Amino acid sequence: MKLKFPVVAIVLEVAMIILFGYFVEYETEQINLQQPNTTNSTKVDRFLELHSLFQDVHVMIFVGFGFLMTFLKNYGFSSVGINLLIAALGLQWGTFMWGIVHNHGQRIHIGIKNMINGDLSTATVLISFGAVLGKISPTQMLAMTILEIAAFVGNEYLVGEIFKASDIGASMTIHAFGAYFGLAVAGILYQPSLRKGHEMEKSAYHSDLFAMIGTLFLWMFWPSFNSVTAETGEKQYMAIVNTYFSLVACVLTAYAFSSLVEKRGRLDMAHIQNATLAGGVAVGTCADMKIHPYGSMIIGSIAGIVSVFGFKFLTPFFTTKLRIHDTCGVHNLHGLPGVVGGLASIVAIALGASKTSTMAMQAAALGSSIGTAVVGGLITG
Amino acid sequence: MKLKFPVVAIVLEVAMIILFGYFVEYETEQINLQQPNTTNSTKVDRFLELHSLFQDVHVMIFVGFGFLMTFLKNYGFSSVGINLLIAALGLQWGTFMWGIVHNHGQRIHIGIKNMINGDLSTATVLISFGAVLGKISPTQMLAMTILEIAAFVGNEYLVGEIFKASDIGASMTIHAFGAYFGLAVAGILYQPSLRKGHEMEKSAYHSDLFAMIGTLFLWMFWPSFNSVTAETGEKQYMAIVNTYFSLVACVLTAYAFSSLVEKRGRLDMAHIQNATLAGGVAVGTCADMKIHPYGSMIIGSIAGIVSVFGFKFLTPFFTTKLRIHDTCGVHNLHGLPGVVGGLASIVAIALGASKTSTMAMQAAALGSSIGTAVVGGLITG
Amino acid sequence: MKLKFPVVAIVLEVAMIILFGYFVEYETEQINLQQPNTTNSTKVDRFLELHSLFQDVHVMIFVGFGFLMTFLKNYGFSSVGINLLIAALGLQWGTFMWGIVHNHGQRIHIGIKNMINGDLSTATVLISFGAVLGKISPTQMLAMTILEIAAFVGNEYLVGEIFKASDIGASMTIHAFGAYFGLAVAGILYQPSLRKGHEMEKSAYHSDLFAMIGTLFLWMFWPSFNSVTAETGEKQYMAIVNTYFSLVACVLTAYAFSSLVEKRGRLDMAHIQNATLAGGVAVGTCADMKIHPYGSMIIGSIAGIVSVFGFKFLTPFFTTKLRIHDTCGVHNLHGLPGVVGGLASIVAIALGASKTSTMAMQAAALGSSIGTAVVGGLITG
Repeated sequence: MKLKFPVVAIVLEVAMIILFGYFVEYETEQINLQQPNTTNSTKVDRFLELHSLFQDVHVMIFVGFGFLMTFLKNYGFSSVGINLLIAALGLQWGTFMWGIVHNHGQRIHIGIKNMINGDLSTATVLISFGAVLGKISPTQMLAMTILEIAAFVGNEYLVGEIFKASDIGASMTIHAFGAYFGLAVAGILYQPSLRKGHEMEKSAYHSDLFAMIGTLFLWMFWPSFNSVTAETGEKQYMAIVNTYFSLVACVLTAYAFSSLVEKRGRLDMAHIQNATLAGGVAVGTCADMKIHPYGSMIIGSIAGIVSVFGFKFLTPFFTTKLRIHDTCGVHNLHGLPGVVGGLASIVAIALGASKTSTMAMQAAALGSSIGTAVVGGLITG
Repeated sequence: MKLKFPVVAIVLEVAMIILFGYFVEYETEQINLQQPNTTNSTKVDRFLELHSLFQDVHVMIFVGFGFLMTFLKNYGFSSVGINLLIAALGLQWGTFMWGIVHNHGQRIHIGIKNMINGDLSTATVLISFGAVLGKISPTQMLAMTILEIAAFVGNEYLVGEIFKASDIGASMTIHAFGAYFGLAVAGILYQPSLRKGHEMEKSAYHSDLFAMIGTLFLWMFWPSFNSVTAETGEKQYMAIVNTYFSLVACVLTAYAFSSLVEKRGRLDMAHIQNATLAGGVAVGTCADMKIHPYGSMIIGSIAGIVSVFGFKFLTPFFTTKLRIHDTCGVHNLHGLPGVVGGLASIVAIALGASKTSTMAMQAAALGSSIGTAVVGGLITG
Repeated sequence: MKLKFPVVAIVLEVAMIILFGYFVEYETEQINLQQPNTTNSTKVDRFLELHSLFQDVHVMIFVGFGFLMTFLKNYGFSSVGINLLIAALGLQWGTFMWGIVHNHGQRIHIGIKNMINGDLSTATVLISFGAVLGKISPTQMLAMTILEIAAFVGNEYLVGEIFKASDIGASMTIHAFGAYFGLAVAGILYQPSLRKGHEMEKSAYHSDLFAMIGTLFLWMFWPSFNSVTAETGEKQYMAIVNTYFSLVACVLTAYAFSSLVEKRGRLDMAHIQNATLAGGVAVGTCADMKIHPYGSMIIGSIAGIVSVFGFKFLTPFFTTKLRIHDTCGVHNLHGLPGVVGGLASIVAIALGASKTSTMAMQAAALGSSIGTAVVGGLITG
């Protein structure tokens, strides 16, 4: 019993070292091989150029997701600790899986893009982690990381390469996918005892302040998250600007509706910690489209409202009626706003904001993301 | 009563969306219009080049200012929460106001400069917030944000475009302005009951550690704050170097004088949290002038001493005699050091460190900043 | 008595201002002097290019080291406060000492390299601080900062310029040096009363969460630490990639072995906070060599294991038998992994991963770093 976790962790790390030994090389080796007369300065320059956006995303993964989940006073340390463990495994496995699928089994040449994709794969698992926090053991989390990233990379390949749908900020492929995957797992793991009690599910004053560290680092760096995989230049510029304005608008509506639905107009801390981020999720899919700053602000405003309503009305309904207990409310922060993001992209394409994808393909991408997530989550659970 | 806050917040957000719909466009649209034969690569490259300095300032606004004010054990969450709300509104309104004034009513083309100016406008309001924390409601804060940014942009235009004064790190236009505006509002809101008691105004051990998160992120990124609007190249380089050396010198004098004025040589936490930053404020105005590293260190040393004396002697005097209660001591962190910054620039110009402005214009800028702030604050209050 | 600390701090700051007045200039003055016909754009561009890596290292110094030491519930504020004080002095003194030694007494022209070297000198002192935390006064810390940086710069010059050894991430010259210097000082300061009791040496729930802030910012930005002094281009790229993969592998083995050595398979918080970082230390020396990603992962895995065993078995042995009390366990985080890093570089060179140094020179560098540190530490103590 006691040996299960260490053995699983060591076996996984040894497996990663073997896989990397066989399949992963430096980027420079490829260049030297293929173009013996050119220097490798271009690729490596590009490396440093994207490095600062990559660092922002890296901070979101470790500090953002890690501290966002510390609001539970009894799970503070375990959420930030397990977050680091999952992320460290996810970065390796995600880098390998993504690389091997997109290179069709060829050797992977590690560049900043691969490291970014490792972070993004990991983000998906961390979102699901929010739904099952407190319900599963570290060993189970390691298993879930391996299975979920495989499903994620499969769906991402389908959406990006087969449907050729647009999803630059990954509202559908990361946020909706991660949320519904986690909810499906949580549904399987439901224990009736959770229905009452919830003794452990309380926040404390200081734990709420720790959670705000997570919220703020996610909020500030979300423009980097949505733009890091965008084409350099105009597309990347638009992804940053659109996300930025969606987020600021989202804060105002989240605060307004939090005060509206709570007794005596008080602000609810869970709404402030989570719903203020929904604008980043919802604008993701169309972040690099010409939706104009005011369009982003409309998307962000809607996301803030939807997210607060989710926390107030849907989460209790899920727990009592659907028997799905969503510890951190990931459905409200990632699930619903992810769906809003998918729908927004359909509207945006209908209005002519982008010509790189079609309405049908966007709908297919949304359906595929949710479908794969639910099926994958049920199997994993 | 309960509906006041949500209604005000929603009306403001709808107003912002309408204003942005009419007045704000992407930067690329302007370029395509004006220079149909060139690509927009230059402007967009410049975007990413400044993006990393912008992110530093963004962190200062949300994590720095937000957590610096968590030292009060009973206002921890509200300070960081309201900080986010004010900043989200301030970014939108500041982007709009600054853009419309500097473009003389023409359409605004959103670039990194506009986003930086949005952050700077917001910083001004957050400084004033420190003086009134615990005294006014969220709804009043929203109103103050709208009024103060309008006054700030007016004064900034006067200083920069009419006087053509130098104030690269905005010691006068942001720090002194924000502090005296806040003090004027606090003076109007003075309640005699605050004179005794101050029960709520205590810090706790953990809240002091949270505040240090704010202090450190402000301290580390202050060179970016003072250099982000500087001319690329030599000027920006000097603004970073000068601010850096002013800050390190300031830490030593702040610690030394804190120990000197306290009983039994103990260090006072409020001094460590605040006075260590005064060097960043005071060097702001002449950060891009040839004041030499040792000149910056002298300015920083003076700022650290002045700030500690302010906390020890001026704040009690303001509360009891002038009936102005300054919750976070913004006068000592932003007000006095801002004035020191203005005076330092006059000395620096007298010594020939810069030829872009004159002593008279710097004095006018300082006077205008404090004057506009006090008048604006009294009206707002 | 009460005046000792303020007087020492003020005298030191005045001394720094005088030294900087005589010896330190802007970088641009040198260029204008030497090459009157060229612009200074190249050097200043290089300044901004490295600025983002520099900021990462800066965050590690102030937030990373500062908060990592907050795990002791009674030393939380003093560790983060004294950390700032030491760092502010260290940056000035390190910039001066490093510059004067490497310029052979000529004037120093401040560029980003000098600021980076200031941070690195300071890191060495902060590592030693971890071993003596709670044992010495702020005044003594200031003295130790002055002495240790002098010894550090001397050893670094010996290793880099005389032996011409490779140590890009400074596993030997910073980490091993800092740890053994601190241990030597701690050995001199040993008080038998510390052997039992240790009442003050307890962590609390919240202080462990604060410490995780330090851990995470160190972990995320370690690739910048190991690459910031590397040659631009391929070398810098490799230093980032190798450190990144060493760190992720280290997390898994550290968690696995922590669970293995603890009762009932629980994870120990000190291991999670510290041992997860050992991979960054250990890969430092050969970070810019062609050790391949899987090679980095092997180094990281070993470092994680060694560090956990150090905490579990060596620290108690040091305290009881060798009479060296290592407050934060710096021997396990910096000392042992630093030695692993030195040994790894000898193996790597034997395997042909680099031709810029020889095995003998690497061994000499390791011996010199530990020797100078122990002698310097004993004298300082």
